[in-house]
Amino acid sequence: MTVPRTICLGFLALILVGTGLLTLPISLQSGQWGDVLTALFTSTSAVCVTGLVVVDTGTYFSGFGQFCVLLLIQLGGLGYMTATTILLLLLGRRFGLRDKVALQQTLDIEELSGAVQLVKSIVALTLLIELMGAIAMFSVFSQTYSTGRSLWLALFHSVSAFNNAGFGLFPDSLISYATSVPINLIITALIILGGIGYQVMMEVFFWGRDRLKGKPNRTCFSLNFKVATSTTLALLLLGFVGFLGAEFRNPNTLGQLDAPAKFLVSWFMSVTPRTAGFNTIDYGRMTTTGLFITIALMFVGASPGSTGGGIKTTTMRILFECTRAVLRGKEEVLCYRRQIPNTLLIKAIGVVFGSVMTVILATVLITLADPSIEFTLVLFEAVSAFATVGLSTGITASVSALSKVVLIITMYVGRVGVLMLMLALLGDPKPSSINYPQENLLVG
Amino acid sequence: MTVPRTICLGFLALILVGTGLLTLPISLQSGQWGDVLTALFTSTSAVCVTGLVVVDTGTYFSGFGQFCVLLLIQLGGLGYMTATTILLLLLGRRFGLRDKVALQQTLDIEELSGAVQLVKSIVALTLLIELMGAIAMFSVFSQTYSTGRSLWLALFHSVSAFNNAGFGLFPDSLISYATSVPINLIITALIILGGIGYQVMMEVFFWGRDRLKGKPNRTCFSLNFKVATSTTLALLLLGFVGFLGAEFRNPNTLGQLDAPAKFLVSWFMSVTPRTAGFNTIDYGRMTTTGLFITIALMFVGASPGSTGGGIKTTTMRILFECTRAVLRGKEEVLCYRRQIPNTLLIKAIGVVFGSVMTVILATVLITLADPSIEFTLVLFEAVSAFATVGLSTGITASVSALSKVVLIITMYVGRVGVLMLMLALLGDPKPSSINYPQENLLVG
Ligand SMILES: [K+]
Ligand SMILES: [K+]
Repeated sequence: MTVPRTICLGFLALILVGTGLLTLPISLQSGQWGDVLTALFTSTSAVCVTGLVVVDTGTYFSGFGQFCVLLLIQLGGLGYMTATTILLLLLGRRFGLRDKVALQQTLDIEELSGAVQLVKSIVALTLLIELMGAIAMFSVFSQTYSTGRSLWLALFHSVSAFNNAGFGLFPDSLISYATSVPINLIITALIILGGIGYQVMMEVFFWGRDRLKGKPNRTCFSLNFKVATSTTLALLLLGFVGFLGAEFRNPNTLGQLDAPAKFLVSWFMSVTPRTAGFNTIDYGRMTTTGLFITIALMFVGASPGSTGGGIKTTTMRILFECTRAVLRGKEEVLCYRRQIPNTLLIKAIGVVFGSVMTVILATVLITLADPSIEFTLVLFEAVSAFATVGLSTGITASVSALSKVVLIITMYVGRVGVLMLMLALLGDPKPSSINYPQENLLVG
Repeated sequence: MTVPRTICLGFLALILVGTGLLTLPISLQSGQWGDVLTALFTSTSAVCVTGLVVVDTGTYFSGFGQFCVLLLIQLGGLGYMTATTILLLLLGRRFGLRDKVALQQTLDIEELSGAVQLVKSIVALTLLIELMGAIAMFSVFSQTYSTGRSLWLALFHSVSAFNNAGFGLFPDSLISYATSVPINLIITALIILGGIGYQVMMEVFFWGRDRLKGKPNRTCFSLNFKVATSTTLALLLLGFVGFLGAEFRNPNTLGQLDAPAKFLVSWFMSVTPRTAGFNTIDYGRMTTTGLFITIALMFVGASPGSTGGGIKTTTMRILFECTRAVLRGKEEVLCYRRQIPNTLLIKAIGVVFGSVMTVILATVLITLADPSIEFTLVLFEAVSAFATVGLSTGITASVSALSKVVLIITMYVGRVGVLMLMLALLGDPKPSSINYPQENLLVG
């Protein structure tokens, strides 16, 4: 069993187990057998940490059902974070693409026992951050709800936020907390930490430890660290300014809020497309410009080695640096005084091309199945599903069964990744040893 | 004066001269001074061979005005075709990107005198094809109109079709000829020839001549030939099947036609996004799926060295072959047993990234200026302007002045190309001689 196949089948198995659990009468508030499509949709959405829902999690599912959803989120998020971190570390060892693929082909998952220490570290860090988030949120929720309810709410939302899952127990996501400073800061902090990747967090940790110990500061941040943090910051700033500009006078979103609240909500809107999926405003009443900016940010998504989805900040950055290189007439792509290997350029193109094709296919299929729904809303939903974001303009529950199946497949493909899925399906790639002559073409 | 600056300023100068001509009282049917914004929009649209219009060309402009439009189309189309063919031939000489850019910097346009022969050949081929198209169409139009009017109609539509300009003299483009087999075949043939590129036509010509002469057939088609023709064919087929599927039961487009007419109109719909811009159905009444397919096809556009726009079939093919290479675990990108140089991959990324950003920026600005217009229609218009297509869902004339200015700039940027414009603005790129170490990143 190759690594890509193990990952793809692992997610599939988890989704199917989850579907089984979520149809049980014990999982439902009503105590009856649940609808299979609803269970499949919810299970896929949870395992892929997407957050799109066709039923209200807080009222449709019983406490046990909600616990199952939370477990699926945690397993899905941790599983993805672990798998991508291992790939990231393997890549760090200067393997070429061909070596890496060959490695993935030969390396059985059992041989990865050296990674056990890494998995332990990831699990510990995850639980620590989630616990801190839960404690912080408990202090807010306990002002309104009973202790037991507050504990459950705090735990659920903390796990969901760190895993960028977007599932919530309130029917309106976090709209009622739109102007609550503590909830906004706690949730956005969890989202950003969950979306920045394990490696980046560990580098900050080691850097901080070295500084505290008064050691001569010789930590050299990796290229991944620099690219992930700077691109994330740029996207946050871009989103913040964009949403503030687009929604400033929209009476349905920012228009009727005072200045500090406008900033707070814009900040949240800018963080949540990093594939978190919580919302503090109604995306169905956003301006077209706002929806468009959200679609673009969702498609880019989070950083590698994290719980988030999308094409990843690093991929986006490579495309950006390529464009800069072309404009400067350079033959190699540089980023922070490091040269980006050509195999990475090819892979970045493959990722983006495959992703765009998947989104286009999903959008076309949904518009064919539900021709009455406006195009923007369908595109928004498709990108949200693909990048495992979970934001919605409110159409998820009302689309036809066929569109729901399309969304389920899109969430799955978006999570395991187009390339990973194709590698799993195609199997053994045989590198050719023939060298063909180069020939030029005019592009653009 | 560098080549990029010459091209950018040349187009700008032609647009401004055209604007002046089209404001003159003699150019208007009404005999009064024309609106400057309307003249600027029409002149840009004509020079960039786009075909978006804010007034009906056939009734707003006088015979002289229409002649000016036709002249601007011919100069704009020929100018672009010549410039890109020269670049294509220079590339054929195995220059790297750095050499090419350096060459463009040092090579004054006056030194291109060796290209005079090439320009003569391009002009001759263009006029020959346009003449044949005009004669063929005259035989159709003369059944309905007087000889003089038929001549003018045939000439205007032939030149407009070969230059992929999309300007017509009928207020409804070619909707009244939707089921006319001769007009459909003549126009689509002109569009395809105009969009395939000079080099491809010449290779076919030489191949045919050698075969006729009974010479041993040793013509070796270039990579550009193979990529341009096969990708164009694939796009035509994809569009044909897509439109037939999407519009089959739409009563506003294909629904009420008989089977042969359904095929004919689908064929036309599949050809015209190769940035021609004529239409035989009302795009404002198309299904969302159909609009979406059109947007995708328009963005790809035509082949290099032609009159058409878009990111070009070759760029699209490189992205596709990259994706295939990644899935097969290969480190180099192959296409017809030729290796695609890495500089070309970088350039392809630059072209697509720059193009997507331009379209996003234009779309956001228009949705901000005209928030009441549906998003799909705005995106359709922005892509149509950028890829110099000229198809419209009918909003062009009714958008605000600000949006019209955005469309004018988008048409110009789309025509000269994002990279060309940036090179013209930035000037002298200085290639660095420092070699930086490689470092890996996880993408996707
Ligand atoms: K999510
Ligand atoms: K056109």
